[in-house]
Amino acid sequence: MPKLRVHTMSISLDGFAAGPDQTLEQPFGRVDEDRLHGWMFGTAGGREAFGTGTGDTTGVDDEMFRAGTEGIGAWILGRNMFGPVRGPWPDDSWKGWWGDEPSYHCDVFVLTHHARDPQPMEGGTTFHFVTDGIGSALEQAFAAADGKDVRLGGGADVVRQYLRAGLVDEMHLAVVPLLLGAGERIFDDADGTTEALAAAYDCRFRQGESEVTHALFTKRA
Amino acid sequence: MPKLRVHTMSISLDGFAAGPDQTLEQPFGRVDEDRLHGWMFGTAGGREAFGTGTGDTTGVDDEMFRAGTEGIGAWILGRNMFGPVRGPWPDDSWKGWWGDEPSYHCDVFVLTHHARDPQPMEGGTTFHFVTDGIGSALEQAFAAADGKDVRLGGGADVVRQYLRAGLVDEMHLAVVPLLLGAGERIFDDADGTTEALAAAYDCRFRQGESEVTHALFTKRA
Repeated sequence: MPKLRVHTMSISLDGFAAGPDQTLEQPFGRVDEDRLHGWMFGTAGGREAFGTGTGDTTGVDDEMFRAGTEGIGAWILGRNMFGPVRGPWPDDSWKGWWGDEPSYHCDVFVLTHHARDPQPMEGGTTFHFVTDGIGSALEQAFAAADGKDVRLGGGADVVRQYLRAGLVDEMHLAVVPLLLGAGERIFDDADGTTEALAAAYDCRFRQGESEVTHALFTKRA
Repeated sequence: MPKLRVHTMSISLDGFAAGPDQTLEQPFGRVDEDRLHGWMFGTAGGREAFGTGTGDTTGVDDEMFRAGTEGIGAWILGRNMFGPVRGPWPDDSWKGWWGDEPSYHCDVFVLTHHARDPQPMEGGTTFHFVTDGIGSALEQAFAAADGKDVRLGGGADVVRQYLRAGLVDEMHLAVVPLLLGAGERIFDDADGTTEALAAAYDCRFRQGESEVTHALFTKRA
């Protein structure tokens, strides 16, 4: 059975996947992004995927990064992961944070309340805009993935929605010894996400070469 | 300058130091206590301190456990750490969870809203009941410690109060790959604790031999 998987989602020790106040200049809000995501940029896999940096580690961190790239046939993203535009799309000029040739190289389903035509990009990525909910997005993504797994790219709010619905099969969070104090939570009591996680998931740790601890969640059978 | 220190406080990855529903039988509420605190019982230091178990590890976990026992001249505990009794003390029959000879062997200041005479125990421990707040308890504890440090033993609510007041100098949390879903939080947005931590503390990780990651907080100068 194809799976829905979350990978390489960095969170601060106090539980935030992004700081407050996302803007065009700060896709992850007010946060030391080098610190939050630095472990990825240190890996050889990260350098290959992002096409920049001097990463050359090939240990656990690299293994964890590469695990997120294997067997993926489609992606799902929340709208804020796709961009900082809010409300109805004023035009089609915003095409994601990732330039003309995004590194997805497959169909990417963007959850939004506002319809928009599919946006083909160079290198095989097409952004599809889904307005009828997370279940529909998952169904469309599994169909597009054609037997491969689907990767859920975030942000935190969308991951929480899929966790609460019991639809995430595996999740890898990279826990960073960083305190953010505010922002987008993965572990949220108020909306029932922590309760849903505790009820249905097991968790184990793997320590990376960098400062992070990798937390691996699997849904109980 | 003597310090106020928190040590060996185990928290689940989703941020809880104890489960819900503390009772006499469940001092840490509904939680797999062997999983939450098992790393301590695995250490040689833990076995020596608690007088039970088969712990014999002498690596990082043991070092982290022993660090909490060094240079401590007095303790501060919240009332729920002292026991499950709520409201005015019906009598002096409850003398803590730890038997006739608690392993503190020094003055222990218990925060409570209800006055009670000091309770001397065997082995040099005396429980003092402080009704005029966390500042007063800290002042009394520093006086009793006579130049040594004071250890803040929890629970989570009391630790949060001292963190928000900027009075904790060092804190060691043992992060366990466990999901509780509910209970007593260390990282709390609503009461301003996460914000206070992010503003004033640095954090780093050390990986133990067991499944835990030790998170070490120090207050910035």
